[in-house]
Amino acid sequence: MKKPVKIAITGAGGKIGYSLIFRIVSGGLLGHDQPVILQLVETPMAKQRLRALNMEIEDCASALVHGVENCFDLDQAFCDCDFVVMVGAKPRKKGMERKDLLGLNGEAFRAQGRALNRNAKSTVKVLVVGNPANTNALVAAANAVDLSPECFSCLTRLDHNRARALLARKLSCATSDIMRLSVWGNHSSTQFPDLSCGRAKEQAIVDLVSDDWRYKDFVKQVQQRGARIIEASGASSVASAAHAIIEHMQIWIRGSAANDWTSMGILSNGEYGVDAGLFSSFPTTVDGDGQVRVVKSIQLQHQARALIDKSIAELKKERDEVRHLLP
Amino acid sequence: MKKPVKIAITGAGGKIGYSLIFRIVSGGLLGHDQPVILQLVETPMAKQRLRALNMEIEDCASALVHGVENCFDLDQAFCDCDFVVMVGAKPRKKGMERKDLLGLNGEAFRAQGRALNRNAKSTVKVLVVGNPANTNALVAAANAVDLSPECFSCLTRLDHNRARALLARKLSCATSDIMRLSVWGNHSSTQFPDLSCGRAKEQAIVDLVSDDWRYKDFVKQVQQRGARIIEASGASSVASAAHAIIEHMQIWIRGSAANDWTSMGILSNGEYGVDAGLFSSFPTTVDGDGQVRVVKSIQLQHQARALIDKSIAELKKERDEVRHLLP
Repeated sequence: MKKPVKIAITGAGGKIGYSLIFRIVSGGLLGHDQPVILQLVETPMAKQRLRALNMEIEDCASALVHGVENCFDLDQAFCDCDFVVMVGAKPRKKGMERKDLLGLNGEAFRAQGRALNRNAKSTVKVLVVGNPANTNALVAAANAVDLSPECFSCLTRLDHNRARALLARKLSCATSDIMRLSVWGNHSSTQFPDLSCGRAKEQAIVDLVSDDWRYKDFVKQVQQRGARIIEASGASSVASAAHAIIEHMQIWIRGSAANDWTSMGILSNGEYGVDAGLFSSFPTTVDGDGQVRVVKSIQLQHQARALIDKSIAELKKERDEVRHLLP
Repeated sequence: MKKPVKIAITGAGGKIGYSLIFRIVSGGLLGHDQPVILQLVETPMAKQRLRALNMEIEDCASALVHGVENCFDLDQAFCDCDFVVMVGAKPRKKGMERKDLLGLNGEAFRAQGRALNRNAKSTVKVLVVGNPANTNALVAAANAVDLSPECFSCLTRLDHNRARALLARKLSCATSDIMRLSVWGNHSSTQFPDLSCGRAKEQAIVDLVSDDWRYKDFVKQVQQRGARIIEASGASSVASAAHAIIEHMQIWIRGSAANDWTSMGILSNGEYGVDAGLFSSFPTTVDGDGQVRVVKSIQLQHQARALIDKSIAELKKERDEVRHLLP
């Protein structure tokens, strides 16, 4: 059996944590021959919930779990971590403005970035899920001054999957037939899901749908899917988010499929005119060594350009609101 | 890719369903090359919850999901089913006596057994989880008059896993080192977790623990583990139950490990003096064809005998209370 790897999960006591952790416990993330040590990161308020969680993890009697630690201290949480999934974020409370929320989360992610810098392996892979995910990732990465920003990414695989599922339904084909979609920009309602390179069973999707549908209905439906889930269930997506987290990490670790790509929020180096230094979602491929590359040479129509610019403008505004938290 | 198999899940809109379904969606039950059609069985009251669940299943964009049907009618639910997980059961309400609960559930499981009889494949594997699981399984199996009772089992793998985890902690070894435990009787607080044949790293567990601990603390801790979880979390076990369901089904489908066995609630043919016709948990092996066999030649000490008899007495009492529902 392989040497155990350490996985830290922030907000471990929440619903996404609950969905995610048992998939890890059963080998669903790293395989049935990879033992794990789970570092469950929470605020002290969640102590009791973690106790129940610990009991249920124990009751799985999984041979893969070589340790479970409840961490209320960030240095303990990130000590020698191989993988970190940052699910925890401050929720927006009544009377709170968006700016207040950005600031509060920014402070939390600055502290986490600094703690990662002090404690994590230099090869750590950190996925930020807690919203505003892109800007939280930016703050954490910027404050982990000795870690490569390539250690950080944020989740847009859920949006990517929603776009795939929507197209599969629209075109009456299997989700596995839908390839080469791209989610651009912020993981927010300004994101731009883009089917310009999309293939459905080897056909170009642009030949199968109207421009009007492509830039209006499709974009809007993907952007607002999260809100539709909240309307239907009274709560945010949980298991589908955990599923996307698993897929994001697996692709990041093992590489992307030969003829396809995924969407990930990563640090921009100015690709496609996205301001360098922002964390933006891009279409990306990952090689077998975990090296992430932005897909090159996508021709963007002016409607696409305008939608991307709108999302990037939002990301810049978010960055400006947390600028005091950047080193 | 293989031909899809049909899996029906009753109580699909509940918490265990939510934990279970996404593990199936991701290939965690039947593997990454086995497509599935999910038949989500619920009462009409749960329509809205199923809608949200449908949306999240779709948002996983899993290539394995070849269909999802919401079923409010049992004939539709079990039509051509390969596998059925019966999670749904009536909860005990205020002022309700145990007998009332048995009767209410008995009626529901009679209807389900009849519907299975009319609709399911003759090779169907039905796992009953909803409590009282053993007696519910008995009622369903007895009313599926044309199906072999070997098509039915009930879940005691969760108790089995709890016993393994408890011993691993007690003996400071890995859960994978703990083998050959047996859970006997009813999946209730009278169950008897038995370590008489247990091995820990090739050592006999009976040589490592006192008789007093073995028959008192150990038994009590396993019996009351569910209640401890409820105390800690305010709710019944969810993800650990889903995990046990996955393991139970995998063992039933693929066979048990070469040197180990599991615990399953199955129809007694009088083995170990358990009244024929009851559904009781036994130590069992499963061969590669899914044939379940009770482990033979276990020597039961008089303390073990007494504990088993107590649990069997409870099962007989439960059966007597639903006798009017048996054909």
